[in-house]
Amino acid sequence: MSADNTLEKALKMHELWNGKIETTAKSHVKSREDLAVAYTPGVAEPCKVIAKDKEAAYKYTMKANTIAVVSDGSAVLGLGNIGAHAAMPVMEGKAVLFKEFGGVNAVPICLDTQDTEEIIRTIVHIAPAFGGINLEDISAPRCFEIEERLKELLDIPVFHDDQHGTAIVVLAGIINALKVVKKEKESCKVVVNGAGSAGVAITKLLLTYGFRDVVMCDINGIISKDSPDLNWMQQKMAEVTNLQNHHGTLADALKGADIFVGVSAPNIVTKEMVASMNPDSILFAMANPVPEIMPDLAREAGARVIGTGRSDFPNQVNNVVAFPGIFKGALEGRASQITEDMKLTTAHAIAGLIPDEELSETNILPEAFDSRVADAVSAAVKALI
Amino acid sequence: MSADNTLEKALKMHELWNGKIETTAKSHVKSREDLAVAYTPGVAEPCKVIAKDKEAAYKYTMKANTIAVVSDGSAVLGLGNIGAHAAMPVMEGKAVLFKEFGGVNAVPICLDTQDTEEIIRTIVHIAPAFGGINLEDISAPRCFEIEERLKELLDIPVFHDDQHGTAIVVLAGIINALKVVKKEKESCKVVVNGAGSAGVAITKLLLTYGFRDVVMCDINGIISKDSPDLNWMQQKMAEVTNLQNHHGTLADALKGADIFVGVSAPNIVTKEMVASMNPDSILFAMANPVPEIMPDLAREAGARVIGTGRSDFPNQVNNVVAFPGIFKGALEGRASQITEDMKLTTAHAIAGLIPDEELSETNILPEAFDSRVADAVSAAVKALI
Repeated sequence: MSADNTLEKALKMHELWNGKIETTAKSHVKSREDLAVAYTPGVAEPCKVIAKDKEAAYKYTMKANTIAVVSDGSAVLGLGNIGAHAAMPVMEGKAVLFKEFGGVNAVPICLDTQDTEEIIRTIVHIAPAFGGINLEDISAPRCFEIEERLKELLDIPVFHDDQHGTAIVVLAGIINALKVVKKEKESCKVVVNGAGSAGVAITKLLLTYGFRDVVMCDINGIISKDSPDLNWMQQKMAEVTNLQNHHGTLADALKGADIFVGVSAPNIVTKEMVASMNPDSILFAMANPVPEIMPDLAREAGARVIGTGRSDFPNQVNNVVAFPGIFKGALEGRASQITEDMKLTTAHAIAGLIPDEELSETNILPEAFDSRVADAVSAAVKALI
Repeated sequence: MSADNTLEKALKMHELWNGKIETTAKSHVKSREDLAVAYTPGVAEPCKVIAKDKEAAYKYTMKANTIAVVSDGSAVLGLGNIGAHAAMPVMEGKAVLFKEFGGVNAVPICLDTQDTEEIIRTIVHIAPAFGGINLEDISAPRCFEIEERLKELLDIPVFHDDQHGTAIVVLAGIINALKVVKKEKESCKVVVNGAGSAGVAITKLLLTYGFRDVVMCDINGIISKDSPDLNWMQQKMAEVTNLQNHHGTLADALKGADIFVGVSAPNIVTKEMVASMNPDSILFAMANPVPEIMPDLAREAGARVIGTGRSDFPNQVNNVVAFPGIFKGALEGRASQITEDMKLTTAHAIAGLIPDEELSETNILPEAFDSRVADAVSAAVKALI
């Protein structure tokens, strides 16, 4: 199916669906007795138990297996700040993926405010119904504060998928790519281009994993402690990256690098830049739909392992291998947080789905439709609770 | 099934259901093409259309057919202020009834705040996802302000079912009861006992319908302009009821009354009080599970038409004949408000389901499981949009 056909079909199908998610009753009400059990007077019994012990909500209500997918519509896909109403199809889509891939019930909620404090307060207020909060498409740097504050305020897992889902799958891919090119993380120079929510989270997780030499770049080139106009999170990142305090352009950064991770803009990496990297380089060019450099060009320039965000090239970096299983595991194991350890173990679990003997330059990540993925991820998360 | 068995079974079944509502995908994702249509890149198309025209949300998202059932857990059933978590089984039950009786998708949301301003702000913030807001089990008088303010702030229907659902079904019952006893509304004296959310809404709707002589009572007896300790809504009601400025007890109020509507407390009406009413009196004794007076006693004392909230007596006054159809009609017709006219027409539609030739002292309201009800109600609402 051509790209144009897909877009046309998408519009038609969205009209036909008229909402990609519906609510379905697990308790049916066909008789007076049904009504007495599911509603009054019977419903008072679980209410009374929960009133005495809030934890019983996990036993008697949907809190056990339902999350909210919450966005303020400020950074939606590649569309930018399109607002709450226009963000709904994406949040509904995400809710569909949670259910289809992880069996997790998910309610799309789009907020008619982009004020950090209001967003935090609103999510705290609606939390009793939910066993977890998946934040989505909230612009940086507000997304960092919103997630951090919510983690402090709530006793249920809060997870910003644009950050951590992406970071986990990138790390999974890098773990396997390093095996293919036979390099060690300790000796690799990594360049992350893009210092928004995904770039920051990827960099953090790579450092946690054990990479020592990570340089972040943004539209102005290499980020260092003395870069002007950094937001508070970028300043924090400047303290733990680029330890040799390099200055210069993305092209400067890439000279002698082993790994490039792009969450930035189309066609900004040239063949010359790739050629200036160390031999056996690894490129994750994830700008979507047009990557930082097209895979064929990167390969001609000497890159060995190339991943993109697209399904029509090998090594698709797709969050869907992470988030459904993460919340499935967190809910089943009743985690109160998604910890750094869980992110690392999830990356290992995803990487581990490709046995060493099947690893190759074009096979470092499981497919989105690999039915083993959600269970493997959820088991990895649960093992840490 | 005995009452005890029902309660025991309710607890067991709630544990088994572990949430009476789940989210279900209408768009299934079994292939790359499915993913491209329901999620990226296809999902960007409806997003772009909605970004240009917010109204398109009704065409492409769940807003078209989904409401939120929102409570702060402050006045739940007969259980009182049990809080957000403990209120969830009731809100889930309500969501089940919306779906089962009206085909309306409903998301239960319980708020971890009982502050009027926070509740209003939170509901405004989450509104983009929803086509309507059903308020539930919020204590008076806060419920009045919350509903009024939300109606001003939002362009989707806001409906407090404890108020208006109850009022509509009571009016429907009274319309038919008056036919049975052959009395006219203009000459009837009505006593409403209970001045919380239901009592206030019933009184308002009866006045709108055309009753002229309505007296409200609360725990201190007849409410008049000079009653002490009235809240602002009760003060407002004192301006339009009890026009002859009576004082005294409920027993005093009932002398010479034609209709009693109780939304108050068990066993507070005696046979003597009923006997002091006018001949052919109508009693709606809706305290639950134990009514203001048991039907057999009321009948012995001379009452002709008796309704209760219970399913084991004739003439059950059950909101479920109103709210699913009201939102079904409001969503299908894209109403921006549930108007007073819609409440009146809904009451007539419910009453009209019992043909005159079938009307009797023990048959004034359709059964909750009468499959014609939701369609009749929804058609009545849509006819006024």
